[in-house]
Amino acid sequence: MQEQYQSRLNTLVNYLENLHVDLAIIKDPKNVFYYTGFNSNPHERFMALVIDLKKQSQYLFVPSLDLEIAEGDSYVKRIIPVSDELNPYKVLRDTIGEGVKTIGLETKVISLFQQEQLDYFFQDFSYENIGDFISGQRMRKSQEECKKVQHAIHVIEKVMEEGIKKVKEGMTEQELTAELEFLMRKFGAEGPSFSSIVLSGAKAALPHGRPDSKTINNGDFLLIDMGVIVDGYCSDITRTFVIGEETSKQREIYDIVRKATEEGVNACKTGIPVGQIDIAARNVIKEAGYGQYFNNRVGHGLGIDVHEEPSVHENNDLIVESGLLFTIEPGIYIPGYGGVRIEENVYIDEDGNGKLLTSFPTELIRIGN
Amino acid sequence: MQEQYQSRLNTLVNYLENLHVDLAIIKDPKNVFYYTGFNSNPHERFMALVIDLKKQSQYLFVPSLDLEIAEGDSYVKRIIPVSDELNPYKVLRDTIGEGVKTIGLETKVISLFQQEQLDYFFQDFSYENIGDFISGQRMRKSQEECKKVQHAIHVIEKVMEEGIKKVKEGMTEQELTAELEFLMRKFGAEGPSFSSIVLSGAKAALPHGRPDSKTINNGDFLLIDMGVIVDGYCSDITRTFVIGEETSKQREIYDIVRKATEEGVNACKTGIPVGQIDIAARNVIKEAGYGQYFNNRVGHGLGIDVHEEPSVHENNDLIVESGLLFTIEPGIYIPGYGGVRIEENVYIDEDGNGKLLTSFPTELIRIGN
Repeated sequence: MQEQYQSRLNTLVNYLENLHVDLAIIKDPKNVFYYTGFNSNPHERFMALVIDLKKQSQYLFVPSLDLEIAEGDSYVKRIIPVSDELNPYKVLRDTIGEGVKTIGLETKVISLFQQEQLDYFFQDFSYENIGDFISGQRMRKSQEECKKVQHAIHVIEKVMEEGIKKVKEGMTEQELTAELEFLMRKFGAEGPSFSSIVLSGAKAALPHGRPDSKTINNGDFLLIDMGVIVDGYCSDITRTFVIGEETSKQREIYDIVRKATEEGVNACKTGIPVGQIDIAARNVIKEAGYGQYFNNRVGHGLGIDVHEEPSVHENNDLIVESGLLFTIEPGIYIPGYGGVRIEENVYIDEDGNGKLLTSFPTELIRIGN
Repeated sequence: MQEQYQSRLNTLVNYLENLHVDLAIIKDPKNVFYYTGFNSNPHERFMALVIDLKKQSQYLFVPSLDLEIAEGDSYVKRIIPVSDELNPYKVLRDTIGEGVKTIGLETKVISLFQQEQLDYFFQDFSYENIGDFISGQRMRKSQEECKKVQHAIHVIEKVMEEGIKKVKEGMTEQELTAELEFLMRKFGAEGPSFSSIVLSGAKAALPHGRPDSKTINNGDFLLIDMGVIVDGYCSDITRTFVIGEETSKQREIYDIVRKATEEGVNACKTGIPVGQIDIAARNVIKEAGYGQYFNNRVGHGLGIDVHEEPSVHENNDLIVESGLLFTIEPGIYIPGYGGVRIEENVYIDEDGNGKLLTSFPTELIRIGN
């Protein structure tokens, strides 16, 4: 376990040395976790992995109240606690000293306010973006990381299997969500990896709808999109069920989406642009005449974050390589009518093949029939 | 309901006009909710309330897949959907047009990457920070907003009351968390307002510890810090229990913390600096000789976000005024031994008095005895 942090940090430090920055400040809490093993959400408090390239020193700045956990968990052992009443950027400057000319920053994470603070304490510095490099490093997952995602998938599939046994006609979406999230914890998850989506009837047409007091009724599509975090890694799967017996139109839509997901999964292999995977899935829906009802990308990377690189959309020309792990989740969403989404998780293994990590059946399951 | 959005927007627009900006881009999803009623987490996608001061127009930019919900929920009716394959900053420029010289931005929210994108599409613009104004506006809560927080407190107190009946010696922290979060949903919450903290024994010394497979044992302190979101507003309360009978040291620590919380609550009134509330609570712990075991601020604002303005720390010289709503949560955390925290929620009412919103008992409750 400890070697992986050393190895990740070495890769990063090599990159930073070639970039000729004096200092790097890594602020995204998930990036801090990736390099140190310390997994914490500091909310509005200051937390950062700081690498001083000139002194070859690494520091983990944490809120004082997290010091004890950080000391236990972090691979980087120089831990600087910052009390609530101090300006953390002053603590940073006092720790690092003067003479910093260039700083490596995650430009998608550092706010203008933080830049202003850095400007005040490290006058006239310039910055280089290191966020894309880090995202790229995180995107290429080791088999050990894949195993962690696989474990989180295993848990959520058990939740799906047990959860649908709890569905009763007339129960609310919110009640079902409560049951599902109870099972997540029961089966060992730290919690949901995102706000669980449990939608029935016409609401299933809302790709990001929220479960509420709507009751689940006979004839409804029931769309369940959920995931868990286990040991810091996420899963994210979707299945759509029918309550009672499906109509022929429901059957038609379901089969198209199922075919689209399959084609997306089948397209996965090294050497092609990521966009081609999106197109493979999307074309099934377009050719069936439902293109107007599918307006978002086919998938997204999955790992420490539930949404990370790569973005599986048709214009992404990144070439697929071993280590990528992402979702394939086409759907058909007809406003006022309902929708279907089937979401799988795929890993590009060391042989360059797409390995399906999800195993929950994709056949249309009738509930309560 | 609709008038409140109009009134909030009017206040903001007045401020922006005096600031002489051409455009304002409000990106924090909770700020978007505050002004429009559309409550959504766009993850890495682009969502913003955009105010064009020159044309006196307001737009809500949302990811395409959220269009249907936004149309239903948003007070701002000019909704611009942005598809995944488009550059949202280009869509923004194409919507607004050229000639933008100054933009109001939330500097704690806008990233360097977003600034670079804006720089590309609106060349040579300068920015003004509007985030502090918005935080200040949100900090002063109407009685209607206080009622919403009060409702979220009511739900979490029911969860606490029913939840502690589920505690059994030997159950794990994680199992108890599952029960508590199930009750949250059952009692009508949209979900937890933050990652629930359920810690027993020595782990109770970790202000931000995480529930895990540790069992809850006789003689343990059991610290439960949790909250819910109901109708977009948060609660956040903490109680510490003892399993079986307390030792005299446990009793001593508990009574000191209870007194500290009370003194903090009693100090709440308009006209004094916020820091004085922190000091009133902190002094109880210091004078009892436990000052070294309380290293964080006494509280934080609470509303749409679980952490918002004001920060109740000793150096905050903001003057308390009507409408503030915040937590008071002193604690004593002894590494390797355990800890106690008691957290109340207070509203500064229109008469300038601190109104205690929490009502769950603060007497030490023995569980399973």
